[in-house]
Amino acid sequence: MKEPIPTPPAGSVGTVETRHLDLPDPVRLDCGRELHPVRVAYETYGTLSPRRDNVILVCHALSGDAHAAGVAKTPPAESARDGFGAAERDGTSAKGLGWWDGMVGPGKAFDTDRFFVVATNILGGCGGTTGPSSTDPATGRPYGPDFPVITVADMVRVERAFLDALGIERLAAVAGGSLGGMQALEWAVRHPDQVDAVVAIASTHALHPQGVAWNAIAREAIMRDPDWQGGRYQGTGRRPDAGMGVARMVGHITYLSAPALEDKFGRRLQFADDIRHTITEPEFEVENYLRHQAAAFVRRFDANTYLYLSRALTYFDLARQHGGGSLKRALEDVSARTLLISFSSDWLYPPSASQEIEEALRELGKPVEAHVIEAPYGHDCFLLEEARQTPIIRRFLS
Amino acid sequence: MKEPIPTPPAGSVGTVETRHLDLPDPVRLDCGRELHPVRVAYETYGTLSPRRDNVILVCHALSGDAHAAGVAKTPPAESARDGFGAAERDGTSAKGLGWWDGMVGPGKAFDTDRFFVVATNILGGCGGTTGPSSTDPATGRPYGPDFPVITVADMVRVERAFLDALGIERLAAVAGGSLGGMQALEWAVRHPDQVDAVVAIASTHALHPQGVAWNAIAREAIMRDPDWQGGRYQGTGRRPDAGMGVARMVGHITYLSAPALEDKFGRRLQFADDIRHTITEPEFEVENYLRHQAAAFVRRFDANTYLYLSRALTYFDLARQHGGGSLKRALEDVSARTLLISFSSDWLYPPSASQEIEEALRELGKPVEAHVIEAPYGHDCFLLEEARQTPIIRRFLS
Repeated sequence: MKEPIPTPPAGSVGTVETRHLDLPDPVRLDCGRELHPVRVAYETYGTLSPRRDNVILVCHALSGDAHAAGVAKTPPAESARDGFGAAERDGTSAKGLGWWDGMVGPGKAFDTDRFFVVATNILGGCGGTTGPSSTDPATGRPYGPDFPVITVADMVRVERAFLDALGIERLAAVAGGSLGGMQALEWAVRHPDQVDAVVAIASTHALHPQGVAWNAIAREAIMRDPDWQGGRYQGTGRRPDAGMGVARMVGHITYLSAPALEDKFGRRLQFADDIRHTITEPEFEVENYLRHQAAAFVRRFDANTYLYLSRALTYFDLARQHGGGSLKRALEDVSARTLLISFSSDWLYPPSASQEIEEALRELGKPVEAHVIEAPYGHDCFLLEEARQTPIIRRFLS
Repeated sequence: MKEPIPTPPAGSVGTVETRHLDLPDPVRLDCGRELHPVRVAYETYGTLSPRRDNVILVCHALSGDAHAAGVAKTPPAESARDGFGAAERDGTSAKGLGWWDGMVGPGKAFDTDRFFVVATNILGGCGGTTGPSSTDPATGRPYGPDFPVITVADMVRVERAFLDALGIERLAAVAGGSLGGMQALEWAVRHPDQVDAVVAIASTHALHPQGVAWNAIAREAIMRDPDWQGGRYQGTGRRPDAGMGVARMVGHITYLSAPALEDKFGRRLQFADDIRHTITEPEFEVENYLRHQAAAFVRRFDANTYLYLSRALTYFDLARQHGGGSLKRALEDVSARTLLISFSSDWLYPPSASQEIEEALRELGKPVEAHVIEAPYGHDCFLLEEARQTPIIRRFLS
């Protein structure tokens, strides 16, 4: 018996289904290789204007997918929503809500009454777009570790080619948080004459070395799991769930602030009376939470995709890639208006990174608006603090 | 051919050898079990006064051992020094220097011209004191996961019994950093009439939930390594080096501050020209550093010891264990003078924890002195900032 599709909440884009498009041409990548075929998973919300001038491209972060808004016609066991900022959102994933449903919809920050919002799954992803778990035409088997090592610029190349195939030339805006914000910034630099506005939330022009280190540790945890098998685990019946779980735990703690953990868990024990003297079982609530998050994540996410996207976001460095080391020079050709939002408690993508972008743009005389929202939930704020982001974004886009 | 023993540096306690003592009686532990036999590895520096009133007990942190000062007669391949705060100290471990050699010696913070300094390897350790790799008399094989789950109080019980065996009743001071500081505080609470002074550096009365989480993640990384084998890896020819490496990487990043990583590595690439598009190889210097630290650590440290000591330091909670939830009540009977040192950039054992102890002691009218040293190297400062700690400690002990 099939579950009935739940009624979309008020302000929802309704029930949606992820579609797929095969790019007509090979995509030439930063590493020098060409990728073909490339399939892109996507969803759209709202109506494309006759002049095709109301398109907003929404880019997702490491663990997201093309299902940004609305209720999935076929809700997965664990939606993308369950990954990032998940714990705060118990219940949404069960309903198959998109990962940014609070921000995309009629009357919301990205207003689908006005804009035609397009969300794709990222190149290298595991949500329907070509990635390491796709079939390598050269072998007929999954790429695995033979998938080319991609960059944020490569993701934007695929997004550009995808929009071409849809007949969309210009973007009224490109928006995203975290790795999604990196894509938005890359768009503004790479296609200055095709982007009217950039919304980069909880993002950066280059991850700081501690962030590089956390990502490296997460990847090490996966690659050191013998079930990773050098990346060729598909079809073996074994997956590096143990290592992926550890990677996810590292992620979760870096997405939350120390005060948020204090607030949410404190030092509360699983069994209130006392410790049970155990090494292997969770004693503190925060330990139990980590195990739960790890278990939920490995059910829905591909380990190689994690490795490739994590690598791409550590590589991202606007100054190095576009400015010979100078962020200002990298941003010289930007013509989009830029909105930067960061969160006071985000130590993974701290406000200082947004401030550096703001300063460089300001010195260049470019239109830029930056907001630091005082909020306690760390990097996860970008998925949680909808109420305070919404008026800022709506005003910026109006 | 044997290597010649290197000449001790000026101000050194000289060449030392770790000795061992078997406790005469079983030790009753918090978990209810009795442990017997218990062997304690220790070193002493300086001369015991005829009245036995000049003893300082030095307690080590998670990865330390009994070799606190001087040059080891038989230097290990990788000394304890190489573990904690190691990277800043290239060369010292090769010389077999004790982990706190900068602080313990003639004219140093813990002045061996004046004090008889005693350093033991912690209960549960892998540096000669009874721990999970010791032989379980019940089976004739290593305890492994059958070793009792110990607490900081249990460590202090063993230290107390060890000093009894040495004929030492009172301590002029008990000192340590991090987990070592926890032991010092536990001494003051548990044996108020036997401790004249406490020096707790970069420590806390209870680790905050983010610290609990980091420790949980490190332990998960070890226990999820199939080579851990439920803790019974000894004698199998396989050890959970992969998981231990990840645990150590997590440790290292939490011991350093984000600005220190910025300063030390920035986003410098391994090969200065450009990225090489690789998932499996280090691209950034900080990635290479992490691998190096992991490889060095697994050569010298036992995985089960890591699990047991990590668990003990997350359990430690003076208020819960001694004050029915109130830190002030827990400290009511303390009669020792207390010196608390913390470091501005230490986010794992932040100054706020020391301030809470200071406030509670002050409200109780107890003699307490607290210093926050402005220094950029995070938790590792307690091993690195000798120059600024030394005058504070010397003055306090004089």
